[in-house]
Amino acid sequence: MSKRTANGQRSLRELPKSPTGIDGLDQITSGGFPSGRPTLICGSAGCGKTLLAMEFLVRGATEFGEPGVFMAFEETADELAANVRSLGFDLDKLAAENRVVLEHVHVERNELEENGEYDLDGLFIRLGYAIDSIGAKRVVLDTIETLFGGLDNQAILRSELRRLFRWLKDRGITAVITAERGDGTLTRNGLEEYVSDCVILLDHRVIDQVSTRRLRVVKYRGTAHGTNEYPFLIDEAGFSVLQGARSRGVR
Amino acid sequence: MSKRTANGQRSLRELPKSPTGIDGLDQITSGGFPSGRPTLICGSAGCGKTLLAMEFLVRGATEFGEPGVFMAFEETADELAANVRSLGFDLDKLAAENRVVLEHVHVERNELEENGEYDLDGLFIRLGYAIDSIGAKRVVLDTIETLFGGLDNQAILRSELRRLFRWLKDRGITAVITAERGDGTLTRNGLEEYVSDCVILLDHRVIDQVSTRRLRVVKYRGTAHGTNEYPFLIDEAGFSVLQGARSRGVR
Amino acid sequence: MSKRTANGQRSLRELPKSPTGIDGLDQITSGGFPSGRPTLICGSAGCGKTLLAMEFLVRGATEFGEPGVFMAFEETADELAANVRSLGFDLDKLAAENRVVLEHVHVERNELEENGEYDLDGLFIRLGYAIDSIGAKRVVLDTIETLFGGLDNQAILRSELRRLFRWLKDRGITAVITAERGDGTLTRNGLEEYVSDCVILLDHRVIDQVSTRRLRVVKYRGTAHGTNEYPFLIDEAGFSVLQGARSRGVR
Amino acid sequence: MSKRTANGQRSLRELPKSPTGIDGLDQITSGGFPSGRPTLICGSAGCGKTLLAMEFLVRGATEFGEPGVFMAFEETADELAANVRSLGFDLDKLAAENRVVLEHVHVERNELEENGEYDLDGLFIRLGYAIDSIGAKRVVLDTIETLFGGLDNQAILRSELRRLFRWLKDRGITAVITAERGDGTLTRNGLEEYVSDCVILLDHRVIDQVSTRRLRVVKYRGTAHGTNEYPFLIDEAGFSVLQGARSRGVR
Amino acid sequence: MSKRTANGQRSLRELPKSPTGIDGLDQITSGGFPSGRPTLICGSAGCGKTLLAMEFLVRGATEFGEPGVFMAFEETADELAANVRSLGFDLDKLAAENRVVLEHVHVERNELEENGEYDLDGLFIRLGYAIDSIGAKRVVLDTIETLFGGLDNQAILRSELRRLFRWLKDRGITAVITAERGDGTLTRNGLEEYVSDCVILLDHRVIDQVSTRRLRVVKYRGTAHGTNEYPFLIDEAGFSVLQGARSRGVR
Amino acid sequence: MSKRTANGQRSLRELPKSPTGIDGLDQITSGGFPSGRPTLICGSAGCGKTLLAMEFLVRGATEFGEPGVFMAFEETADELAANVRSLGFDLDKLAAENRVVLEHVHVERNELEENGEYDLDGLFIRLGYAIDSIGAKRVVLDTIETLFGGLDNQAILRSELRRLFRWLKDRGITAVITAERGDGTLTRNGLEEYVSDCVILLDHRVIDQVSTRRLRVVKYRGTAHGTNEYPFLIDEAGFSVLQGARSRGVR
Repeated sequence: MSKRTANGQRSLRELPKSPTGIDGLDQITSGGFPSGRPTLICGSAGCGKTLLAMEFLVRGATEFGEPGVFMAFEETADELAANVRSLGFDLDKLAAENRVVLEHVHVERNELEENGEYDLDGLFIRLGYAIDSIGAKRVVLDTIETLFGGLDNQAILRSELRRLFRWLKDRGITAVITAERGDGTLTRNGLEEYVSDCVILLDHRVIDQVSTRRLRVVKYRGTAHGTNEYPFLIDEAGFSVLQGARSRGVR
Repeated sequence: MSKRTANGQRSLRELPKSPTGIDGLDQITSGGFPSGRPTLICGSAGCGKTLLAMEFLVRGATEFGEPGVFMAFEETADELAANVRSLGFDLDKLAAENRVVLEHVHVERNELEENGEYDLDGLFIRLGYAIDSIGAKRVVLDTIETLFGGLDNQAILRSELRRLFRWLKDRGITAVITAERGDGTLTRNGLEEYVSDCVILLDHRVIDQVSTRRLRVVKYRGTAHGTNEYPFLIDEAGFSVLQGARSRGVR
Repeated sequence: MSKRTANGQRSLRELPKSPTGIDGLDQITSGGFPSGRPTLICGSAGCGKTLLAMEFLVRGATEFGEPGVFMAFEETADELAANVRSLGFDLDKLAAENRVVLEHVHVERNELEENGEYDLDGLFIRLGYAIDSIGAKRVVLDTIETLFGGLDNQAILRSELRRLFRWLKDRGITAVITAERGDGTLTRNGLEEYVSDCVILLDHRVIDQVSTRRLRVVKYRGTAHGTNEYPFLIDEAGFSVLQGARSRGVR
Repeated sequence: MSKRTANGQRSLRELPKSPTGIDGLDQITSGGFPSGRPTLICGSAGCGKTLLAMEFLVRGATEFGEPGVFMAFEETADELAANVRSLGFDLDKLAAENRVVLEHVHVERNELEENGEYDLDGLFIRLGYAIDSIGAKRVVLDTIETLFGGLDNQAILRSELRRLFRWLKDRGITAVITAERGDGTLTRNGLEEYVSDCVILLDHRVIDQVSTRRLRVVKYRGTAHGTNEYPFLIDEAGFSVLQGARSRGVR
Repeated sequence: MSKRTANGQRSLRELPKSPTGIDGLDQITSGGFPSGRPTLICGSAGCGKTLLAMEFLVRGATEFGEPGVFMAFEETADELAANVRSLGFDLDKLAAENRVVLEHVHVERNELEENGEYDLDGLFIRLGYAIDSIGAKRVVLDTIETLFGGLDNQAILRSELRRLFRWLKDRGITAVITAERGDGTLTRNGLEEYVSDCVILLDHRVIDQVSTRRLRVVKYRGTAHGTNEYPFLIDEAGFSVLQGARSRGVR
Repeated sequence: MSKRTANGQRSLRELPKSPTGIDGLDQITSGGFPSGRPTLICGSAGCGKTLLAMEFLVRGATEFGEPGVFMAFEETADELAANVRSLGFDLDKLAAENRVVLEHVHVERNELEENGEYDLDGLFIRLGYAIDSIGAKRVVLDTIETLFGGLDNQAILRSELRRLFRWLKDRGITAVITAERGDGTLTRNGLEEYVSDCVILLDHRVIDQVSTRRLRVVKYRGTAHGTNEYPFLIDEAGFSVLQGARSRGVR
């Protein structure tokens, strides 16, 4: 008995997607990141996490008419702007046009803790304000470790992650969160990848002294996606993912 | 002296089984998951744990006349429905027909602890109510880590796991519990696989940049089962397990 | 100068053994497990620990006239009976004939602790009663981790293990204790294998997608034994160990 | 649609760079280390971290007219001077000419802690004074572990690292910080590499009894750089990096 | 200038040695274990530690006229006697002739701790009494972990080890101490091997399903010794070490 | 522009060195260990650390006119003397001639701690007295772990190490300190190698059952040195290092 009979009539609706505008990546993901859901980009230092998140945001604002908020916990707005200038992104112009908001949030350790409980409310207020100011559809949080760096209780961390992701989902935001690589796990805590709807792994290996960059869609709830490792480049034109071993239609 | 003489007369009764309806998997397990017992599905992020559990539930409701409860600790009912729509599962319809109940349980850290003891009673009440409302025979708990994430005392965890599994067994429920992969162990705590009657491991490897999905029946108390690794696919028709190296009749 | 002269006269007595009745295993061990001493069977989830222990007990009762007590800390008597039915073991019949006692002991965390000390006395009373009720010669404890799961002080654990083993030895019981595999050690605590007189390791590997079961006598105080790894099968006739690479007479 | 159209007009500005004057290294980095930002040099004992940092400072003072402060937490000024004499560096002369300041800071454990909080203010005062005394443009901190060795709270450490790096950036200082290799991570804490704008890894392997030194630009925010591993030498002429496998224009 | 001139006159005295009487082992060690000093025998469960220690003691008593004390912390005298009977050792006879004393010491956790300090005095009294009763020259302690199992403070452990070894040295006892293998270290604590004068490692590997036993002299202060790995056997004639790759005269 | 022009005039002064008198080692290090600075000799149990340190001291006293103090924390003077007698070293004679002092220091745990602070003052007094008594130029501390074994606070340990090394440097002592191998690090704490000016690693591997000893200069501040691994022997003539793969002039 085939599955089609089990449900009477086959639904053709797919999950809504937000295109990244990045060559190859939209093909691998059959259309981009999941709209209104959080996507996790993880990798070690120097793998290109921040650049990929930024390109997703800039292209959203310039090519797809979706304003975006970049919330940086480490770098200032000026530094971010300088860092992506060589990719041809003019963040100052985009900010002046109300298409992008760059927010540098300095996370004080004490700010987020209250009565022994972790408290994200301050962050929510600030993020909500930035979103409303330009009608943002996309948000980048860079990086999750700065936000949760001091939490070592797995239950609290899991609970707060869920609360943050729920807050973003309730607002219909397509979010990209960057995460630092853990020891034998995708993220430092080994938790975020389970809570996220979509997980992209960036890798930067050196084999026989030659370096290679690789991208892999580790997980994508609710959609078919290419699951192989794909080489990618970062050059003057930004990211581009090579789809030598394309395998669409398979999760 | 052969064993047959030791017992006088050879019993031909086998353990009762609940078919999954998934191509290949029922062959490997000689009939499906153990009826009235808990089966553990473990694997890392993106391996397909939730999808396999969902397909077991939906096919039970549509093909085998067994209503089912899906208790999700991370995703909401709407999100779950959206995620499996591309597999052709219409959960809204099934819910309307009282064949499936989707429950999103938000586990608050404090809810489950009382007087320094862990307290599952609230969960039991809610789960019991959902089971009774449709006369459910199958239950999915997704995922065990959300439920027990904050417990790091091995003795308490083992004791609570046993209590949960006993509760399910006492009601004759065929349960599927998903579990996140641990570091060098099947589950995060390395305990669940010992307490469970049946353990399925899903794996998602990338070898030479090409990804492969593999399924293995790690353990099945009371029955013969194929013990090799079997490749599997997730496509528009759901799961299908390939039995290239079939080895029935051997535990 | 040869050793024989050192002792004047060579003693020919060997350690007394209790046959397992399992093809191959009695050959490898030159007669079975050590009579009146504890043997440890260790391995990971799904390796067949419980089945091997059960077969040792059933065959003792049916083929060698030695009644036995199976003390299970996880599974109930009914579940155990169901699980071994496919191997042709009729536990209900054996229990009715007073040849086997199946005891399900629910270890409450608090039961075994008293005044900050671990307290095995309750277990000893219950086990002693079961042994006396049928004049048992063999005992299985399944599994040691449930009993000692909450102990993380190495000194206390070692001390309690010694006390348990001493209690069994003082009664002349041939005991089999199952143990869960540790991370890089034979058992979870890495202690039991040092305290035991005989240690059997069961292994269930998957190599190139094909699974293999292997048995090894890691340790056997006071006797010569085969020390290689031997493949084994579990089928309708129970365990059988293949002695392709036989090496008797060498420890 | 190409990226160039997305931004209307392509900006040609690159990040400002401070040349190291080291053969090969300026080629790999397209001009040197990032001006006004912190660069991390990490590696295990004996890999040449301190020498590379010193050569960057000396050449800055002698070849590029940028005075520099070398702040050593382990070695005294005399010892430093002696250690680099064989490379042809005359630190005494450079100090006399107000082109280099060598500061030995003895970090007392108590000095940096105050009211349970870590306190870098004393260091900032001293460092600020040294910088002002010669109008320094370059600063070396050798090594970060001595400064933060006692901090094991990841949140505090991350916060203090950010504060130190922010302080240096606010003054427009091109800083080089040395860091000891961690276990499976670039640095002992596995944090510094994420906070830094540029990360250089020095490696000293012994393969088949022959030692090789290798340098790799792990990360360089805001610029294209060679990402392969490059062999390097330390001889009487100081560092020289061999660019056998040159790959400019790729991040 | 040769070393010989440096000391004027070359001393020909070697360290005094106590022969083990074991084929091959006395050749590898150029005469046996160091007289009046502690030798450590380490290895994992089932490697033959206890047997080697026992053979050293029995042969000392029977072949070399040196009475010995075997102090067992796990096994009783009866069990020990039974375990070595198959090797042809008649411990009851040796005990009756006052050539060997078998002591079973039950280490209670509380016995050795006093005022938060570890207290070996009770052990010293008992051991001293046993030594005096037969004028013992050799002592075996089996195993060190039972004695020190509860100590996890490295400084205290090191200090107590030194005290025990000093006590034995002061009495001129040639001691053999057995030790359980640690994770990546020779002993569980990774300390004993540094404090001991002589360290023997027993290994029991399984390669391609075939088991091999190997012995290696890891350390021998004050003497030349073979440093390769030597296969050994345990059969009816006890230990024998094969010296295929003999390399005397080299440390 | 070459470096020579940067400094106007090339300094030809090299670091002063203290010859070890050991064949091969003085060649590899271009003259011996750094005068007036601490050298660390690290390796696992049985690698020859103590012997190398002793030979450095004895040859200093006999061949280079530099009296020396050997401070042993584990072995007594008598034991040390016995252990090196087979190498032809007559320590009693050297002590009688005031060319060598052998000190056995028994480090009590309490001795070095005071008011929660670690206190090396007692050691300094005793060491200072021994140095003054013979005008010692060389000192051996064997082994650093005994001295600092109880310290697990990285910041305190680092600080005390610096204080000890500073004390030795201030007196112009050429020191050799032995250190036990850590797990994946050169020393047990993984700190000493960063603080030391010169680090020698001794290794004792067994490959295919054949043992090999290797020496490597891991680090040597302020000088060029051979960086390969060099095989070495310990025989009746003491250490000798084979320079098959000589690579002078390269750091």
